[in-house]
Parts: sequence; C-alpha cells; structure tokens
Amino acid sequence: MQPRGVHHIGHAVVDLDSALGDYQRLLAARVEHRETVEEQGVEAASVVVGNARIELLAPLGPDTPVGRFLAKRGPGMHHIAYLVDDVETALAAAADAGAELIDEHARVGLFGMQVAFVHPDSLHGVLIEFVQTGDQGGRHE
Amino acid sequence: MQPRGVHHIGHAVVDLDSALGDYQRLLAARVEHRETVEEQGVEAASVVVGNARIELLAPLGPDTPVGRFLAKRGPGMHHIAYLVDDVETALAAAADAGAELIDEHARVGLFGMQVAFVHPDSLHGVLIEFVQTGDQGGRHE
Repeated sequence: MQPRGVHHIGHAVVDLDSALGDYQRLLAARVEHRETVEEQGVEAASVVVGNARIELLAPLGPDTPVGRFLAKRGPGMHHIAYLVDDVETALAAAADAGAELIDEHARVGLFGMQVAFVHPDSLHGVLIEFVQTGDQGGRHE
Repeated sequence: MQPRGVHHIGHAVVDLDSALGDYQRLLAARVEHRETVEEQGVEAASVVVGNARIELLAPLGPDTPVGRFLAKRGPGMHHIAYLVDDVETALAAAADAGAELIDEHARVGLFGMQVAFVHPDSLHGVLIEFVQTGDQGGRHE
C-alpha cells in the first residue's frame, strides 16, 4: 500500500503559543487550524511551512498521551502522518505486512480527519498515522 | 525566511537493511540513494514514499552522532530537513530570529547536498536541517 506522501509531521510541545510564535518567526509558518480536543487531552495547531504541514500538539495535562510523551522524551517529533486514499485499506495492508496496529479501525482524529495509528515498534521507533482527508487532490498531498 | 517545504525526514535506525526492508514492505518505499560516509560515521539511505522522502540513518559505531542519539533516545525520528533556496540566507535569517546554529555556514552533507543544522533547543526539541539541492524545481520540493 503506497501512501500519497506525508500529510503532516506531529511535534509535541510544552506551550502551544510559544511554539506557534517560534514557528512563525523562524520558518514563516502560517497557522491553518487550531483546536482544543478535551477528550484527547490536547490543544493542537496545524501550521503550513511552504508546501509542508506541521502539527503542534500541547497536552492539556500530564495524564494525557502527549503529556506522558513529554514526561518520557521531552518536546520534539511525535509522529508522521502519511496521507492515504483509504485508512481501512492502509490498516489492513499494514497488518498483513506484520505491523502492530494501535487503532484497528479508522476513527475521527484532529481537525475532523479520518485517522488510525500504527505502533512505533512496527517501524523502527516511529509512530505512524494514516490520514484520509477526503481532499486527496489538494496541494497538501 | 520561508522554506519551500520539507525535503526529507531523518530517522535514526539500528540496522539499515532491516529498516529498508520494513519501509519497502509497509510503505512501498522506493530506495533512491544509499551511501556510507565514514567521516560522518553513518550509513544512510534515502527512500521515497509517495511524494515524500525519508532518510534512514544507521551509525557505523557507538561513538558517532547517530550512535550517541540511539544510545540516548533509541531509534526514531532524528531531524526534519527543510528545503530552502539558499542555505546561507536561511541560516542568517534563523540567527536573526534568535536561533542557535550548529553549522555557521553551509557544508556538504549526505548525497552531496548543501546543508546546515539548527540546534533543537531553538525549535522546541526538533533538530532542523536546511537543505539546498540545486534542483528546487523538482517534484520533491
């Protein structure tokens, strides 16, 4: 199963406003979306740098997935989201190839996208997300 | 200074052949380049996944930059390379914006590219590389 490319690269940060300011200042990033998702314990912003997209993730508290990641590893790269035509097909192909799935089925992720995660042990320590946007023809493939 | 986008995402791996096999099997990755650079202590492969590029980095020994990274953090995401028109201009703009530079000037990196690194403390724990390929019009911008 060949992804179309990278949809975004997720970064864990301590302070979202501080990170947004630095991305705007250092990389001329443009803020695309910003959203707080209480049930996922995260405040997230999607920023565009040239033709790439970075997702900045700040935890709403220590006992959240991003909070635990920060406590263990500190701020930095968190996951890579590959754009696929169909998340269910991508999951099935990954499982057939021996990958350990975190999500057995597609679910609604940040910014309303259909997403699913594959365990980092399956790809040499990199947490992989499959993303299906319904807008696969767009410039951010 | 606005990069054109992400040129590649660098991953530190323990075993390059094993990683290449998994990227080919799980993500239908195509190997673009492979190179051993003794003086940087690394064996590297560039793989293409859809319209994105992943750089897999395996250390030639424990006392190398990638070897020390692996000992400290384990395998996983290592850096993000932003494609810029001119590395020297990008470095100057980053320094003006308060970034701490690892390389004060562009140097020859893997696969003959002009590169320079910015310290991860400057961008919330993410090691940033600026890359200038001389082929900025290509499909891998």
